[in-house]
Amino acid sequence: MMEWKNLDTLTSFEELSKVAEVDLTKVMSGENGAERVKKYSTPMAEGLAYNYAAKKVDDNTLAALAKLAEEAQLSEKFAALYNGEVVNTGEKRLVLHHMTRGQLGDAVEADGVDKRSFYVEQQNRIADFANKVHAGEITNAAGEKFTTVVQIGIGGSDLGPRAMYLALENWAKKNNTFKMEAKFISNVDPDDAAAVLASIDVAHSIFVLVSKSGTTLETLTNESFVKDALKNAGLDASKHMIAVTSETSPLAKSDDYLAAFFMDDYIGGRFSSTSAVGGAVLSLAFGPEVFAQFLDGAAEEDKLSLNKNMLENPEMLDALIGVYERNVLGYPATAVLPYSQALSRFPAHLQQLDMESNGKSVNRFGESVNYVTGPVIFGEPGTNGQHSFYQLLHQGTDIVPLQFIGFKNSQIGTDVVIQDSTSQQKLCANVAAQIVAFACGKADDDRNKNFEGGRPSSIIIGEELNPKTLGALLAHFENKVMFQGFLWNINSFDQEGVQLGKVLAKRVLAHDTDGALKVYSDLLNI
Amino acid sequence: MMEWKNLDTLTSFEELSKVAEVDLTKVMSGENGAERVKKYSTPMAEGLAYNYAAKKVDDNTLAALAKLAEEAQLSEKFAALYNGEVVNTGEKRLVLHHMTRGQLGDAVEADGVDKRSFYVEQQNRIADFANKVHAGEITNAAGEKFTTVVQIGIGGSDLGPRAMYLALENWAKKNNTFKMEAKFISNVDPDDAAAVLASIDVAHSIFVLVSKSGTTLETLTNESFVKDALKNAGLDASKHMIAVTSETSPLAKSDDYLAAFFMDDYIGGRFSSTSAVGGAVLSLAFGPEVFAQFLDGAAEEDKLSLNKNMLENPEMLDALIGVYERNVLGYPATAVLPYSQALSRFPAHLQQLDMESNGKSVNRFGESVNYVTGPVIFGEPGTNGQHSFYQLLHQGTDIVPLQFIGFKNSQIGTDVVIQDSTSQQKLCANVAAQIVAFACGKADDDRNKNFEGGRPSSIIIGEELNPKTLGALLAHFENKVMFQGFLWNINSFDQEGVQLGKVLAKRVLAHDTDGALKVYSDLLNI
Repeated sequence: MMEWKNLDTLTSFEELSKVAEVDLTKVMSGENGAERVKKYSTPMAEGLAYNYAAKKVDDNTLAALAKLAEEAQLSEKFAALYNGEVVNTGEKRLVLHHMTRGQLGDAVEADGVDKRSFYVEQQNRIADFANKVHAGEITNAAGEKFTTVVQIGIGGSDLGPRAMYLALENWAKKNNTFKMEAKFISNVDPDDAAAVLASIDVAHSIFVLVSKSGTTLETLTNESFVKDALKNAGLDASKHMIAVTSETSPLAKSDDYLAAFFMDDYIGGRFSSTSAVGGAVLSLAFGPEVFAQFLDGAAEEDKLSLNKNMLENPEMLDALIGVYERNVLGYPATAVLPYSQALSRFPAHLQQLDMESNGKSVNRFGESVNYVTGPVIFGEPGTNGQHSFYQLLHQGTDIVPLQFIGFKNSQIGTDVVIQDSTSQQKLCANVAAQIVAFACGKADDDRNKNFEGGRPSSIIIGEELNPKTLGALLAHFENKVMFQGFLWNINSFDQEGVQLGKVLAKRVLAHDTDGALKVYSDLLNI
Repeated sequence: MMEWKNLDTLTSFEELSKVAEVDLTKVMSGENGAERVKKYSTPMAEGLAYNYAAKKVDDNTLAALAKLAEEAQLSEKFAALYNGEVVNTGEKRLVLHHMTRGQLGDAVEADGVDKRSFYVEQQNRIADFANKVHAGEITNAAGEKFTTVVQIGIGGSDLGPRAMYLALENWAKKNNTFKMEAKFISNVDPDDAAAVLASIDVAHSIFVLVSKSGTTLETLTNESFVKDALKNAGLDASKHMIAVTSETSPLAKSDDYLAAFFMDDYIGGRFSSTSAVGGAVLSLAFGPEVFAQFLDGAAEEDKLSLNKNMLENPEMLDALIGVYERNVLGYPATAVLPYSQALSRFPAHLQQLDMESNGKSVNRFGESVNYVTGPVIFGEPGTNGQHSFYQLLHQGTDIVPLQFIGFKNSQIGTDVVIQDSTSQQKLCANVAAQIVAFACGKADDDRNKNFEGGRPSSIIIGEELNPKTLGALLAHFENKVMFQGFLWNINSFDQEGVQLGKVLAKRVLAHDTDGALKVYSDLLNI
């Protein structure tokens, strides 16, 4: 019998809070530390590994976390989700983003169709379209090949696909699968669209309009902006645009688009990178085969999330440790620190994924919870972050848990040897050094140069950032966020918190304001 | 008599903590709210205004903050700084970044020269050099004009200049002062340099190597990377490189560079955007006149920071409110949310500026403090953030104070009318709406759709983002961070927290490791 219970009503959570806190400065020192690094690691898909040796856990903590996983019925809840229960209770929707890359359980029928078949069909339709664009069978009106793809979308229709594009751009160039440059227009600030349009050759550009509802004001506004530019260039906009939307949206059957590809209400925006939302732009940019590999990587990681043994389930384990840090140790934020320039916007995507999913104060029944939920998420690539905000991470008054990511090899492979090491070795040496510096610290009589240590981190290590490992990485964080939502007993799949601002913005634009809102509107000259 | 005392030893701080907390949902409603928005605003330089109506302050709070400003001797400490006292006590250095854009007090002599004259001289030397590059008097070996400038630097030599470049790129193009495209190489990840080099025409590129000490390993490594690329292209690297460094650095008089421009030990990296560190790349990209306007804006704002009346000193006021939120109300983070795509990397610069300056646990005498200091700083441009992490800001369990920035006009000026409003109006309507939504909230019987409100924000409003307003904005945050450091009685001008990681990374590269560090090194294949 599955029960949805608040975290603070679980016996195992009370037990967890009584487990002695691990002193990282002690356990990570000497040979004991070496043993921990070897022991506290679990394999992920595609050769990745999740290493949590520098987290404040030991066998006692892990035993308590395993009990919590069981009492909170994490595996059962995940099964309910992928077998098609209405887990998004607020919006009364299924949650099916895993099905865009595989089938973990039962066939799920909705809207009169088998959903796995539906997502595969969209993937195939996109592949066919992209192949025809690359082959010059679909061209602009002058019969010339398209050279650039521009995604128009915001939030989940922007951050995930943009981060994935940047993550694979250099890999694709190196591996000769690079087909078209991609650009992104998201902000309603007119300078965003204007700057992107000034940087491209519109006559050879294809635009992907992404809006599930077909009513996102920012996106429709930017579509008009682009259509104006196409018209001013003497071009027929309908020969330059495709849509990614739901089948019921006004965009779905419009003559304004060369083609429309579909997602549905069961794919939340922030979980949509593996759906047509990511599929169209990534297939056009890198070829459908690369997008398929990305899905394969995600599907492989999803399978690991099925493991009931927490120690063999990196997502569940990461989620549990995060809740321990948040709700027992009381840490307010988490930093995501990839030692890979290609992952420069991956933290921004995770910021949305995590904060929009779990930044909630009520449980799934609409009752206020008595504990903190999702933390603030932020991050920048190392080594850049080291020369920026790491000062606070090392010596600030708050402890911020850290999530490192590192790869043994670079993507492009060009390198230089300075002082007997390559840049890639320097990069990796830095992340290894940081983990130990944060955990162990270093005593100094000059308190200004003293490092207390005891600052927990984990690291995901892989051979190379490529489509498969990127897919696995994405699925890891998606599933971690999902498991944390289960632990906090919240609905991670709605976002009611974005509504009030939209309502008030409409009132401002309609000049239907009074009080403070009217004065702000006047000050801003609206 | 000036005294450096811990925040919790000040009588006025104890009084502040007893002031009744303002209920924003009440005071920001109705006509009272309208009055607050008009009243709680203070002019900044260049037509900007700092509006703090949606902060949890009223006349009682402000009176207590004014007492705190006085007891903490904020104005006296700023005067000590700009008059040349050794305020950076840890490193025993003067703190003179204000002098790169003006002279606020006494002449300061150091290293045998008048420092204001020294900074002006460097600015003039850069202007002369940039003008010659633009005029085609300084060219590549083939006598062809340079078309691209590439900054090689990390941390303060990267984030500030990069954010300023992005902030002004479209403005300069629109106003016909755009001279050369700028690119930035920072990360020791070899893919960073390789990708930038693949995107430019090296034969027509001039590289700016920025390192105060001349020993920053990441930067020297990337310099070698670039030199290899130049050599492989059959080019003489010394005809393509300039250095920005201190006069005592090994780079200062090297034949490897076309020219060297100087900063000194009295300019911290994160405060160096107005020195030669920002000056070289920005003068080359936009012309020296634009850089001079940027300095003028910063200098004008600096003058406002001299006001002893807190209500006429936006930086002091912002700093005091921030300390109230951090140390009395207990909020752990602050979000910086510019409604301007051009400010896309401004939050990343402020993240370094703030967290590296004030992420400290010891006071300026090296004694542990008993209160929290610098918060986590993060942010993304609106409206993008609205579709990302604002869910947590509206409905999460932690309250995160917000710093909005908005401009009445866009930079490029191209716009489109959809549903009776321009994109720029939509952008501004959104920020106005968000302030009120965060402050007032909205009750709903469905707790999932309920907004508690009471979430404080401020906004800086201007006509347009241009060199002068950007300078004022930058100086605002630099001085805010400085005043907060005074309040917390910490040294905001050193960064000892970055040292341990450097030491351990060197050990890894020398294979001089044991324990956990050795195992991590093995896992990462170093």
